[in-house]
Amino acid sequence: MTSFAGASSGADAARAARAVVSELTARGETVAVAESLTGGLVVATLVGVPGASAVVRGGVVAYATPVKASVLGVDAELLAERGAVDPEVARQMAAGVRSALSVDGEAATWGISTTGVAGPDPQDGKPVGTVFVGIASADGATAWELHLDGDRDAIRHATVSELLARMSSAADGALPTAGE
Amino acid sequence: MTSFAGASSGADAARAARAVVSELTARGETVAVAESLTGGLVVATLVGVPGASAVVRGGVVAYATPVKASVLGVDAELLAERGAVDPEVARQMAAGVRSALSVDGEAATWGISTTGVAGPDPQDGKPVGTVFVGIASADGATAWELHLDGDRDAIRHATVSELLARMSSAADGALPTAGE
Repeated sequence: MTSFAGASSGADAARAARAVVSELTARGETVAVAESLTGGLVVATLVGVPGASAVVRGGVVAYATPVKASVLGVDAELLAERGAVDPEVARQMAAGVRSALSVDGEAATWGISTTGVAGPDPQDGKPVGTVFVGIASADGATAWELHLDGDRDAIRHATVSELLARMSSAADGALPTAGE
Repeated sequence: MTSFAGASSGADAARAARAVVSELTARGETVAVAESLTGGLVVATLVGVPGASAVVRGGVVAYATPVKASVLGVDAELLAERGAVDPEVARQMAAGVRSALSVDGEAATWGISTTGVAGPDPQDGKPVGTVFVGIASADGATAWELHLDGDRDAIRHATVSELLARMSSAADGALPTAGE
């Protein structure tokens, strides 16, 4: 799936984060976050919501590409062939962090992920603003392709908003998490 | 070591992050981040600096206490006995994330960590604003106790500034990282 997203504010992200924490709390579900270009902003935004500790397991910021394989279990050959900015990498990061942050042998209910090019330079042959976000559950994993405008900061913040809005819909049962 | 820190801004944190990235780049060194109460803000602040990818391996946000043991290797008995808000927990988180984010078998040069009580409620018997930050290298690990004022957001942001300022001094050789 491909989306073109415009300007997005920290307020959008905070609103989406509150919705996610509230929905997951109501369902007794948990979330773990795997981030590349956003570098911790997704999990920091979730943790900024009072009551987050009931649902947020934590996250892995796999900024260096080899860490995506070693900590999150993303296929190293896939990374070597296609680079880190790829929908299958986003799906594997989301699925991998569910397990990486298991508690008492139980994976998090949801894994969510970001990988993309914040700039200023292109990466792995992909232009600045190309971003993939992923959501995984026990039913499978989905990735979305985003094309975001603006500088490094704007692209990172828009990625957070776009992912958390999708996570909120997914927790509501409004989005598929398999078959993409 | 105990410090009492006053108000601290995002600008302080960004300045300290730029200093850390510049010093580590000059030395060819790397850093990995283990966060609890800051929930990803430390690594997000570092990654916000252009050129960060040369030195920032990434991070682990171990928000749920069991994740501190399972992903970062913090002693589970220590966590059970003293809780997560403890100087030895901060030291073990910093040391643990160096190894957890190894690349080609090489630990990050530096591991840095945060654990503490952002509020609104006390945790593990510790009052709101009690924070420990840690720095580890191959030479050992040090923790500092902070007593921070303000709301949840202010405490988290002050923690980021205080830790990054210490990391900048440590990279400069101005702080011990053993024997505390």
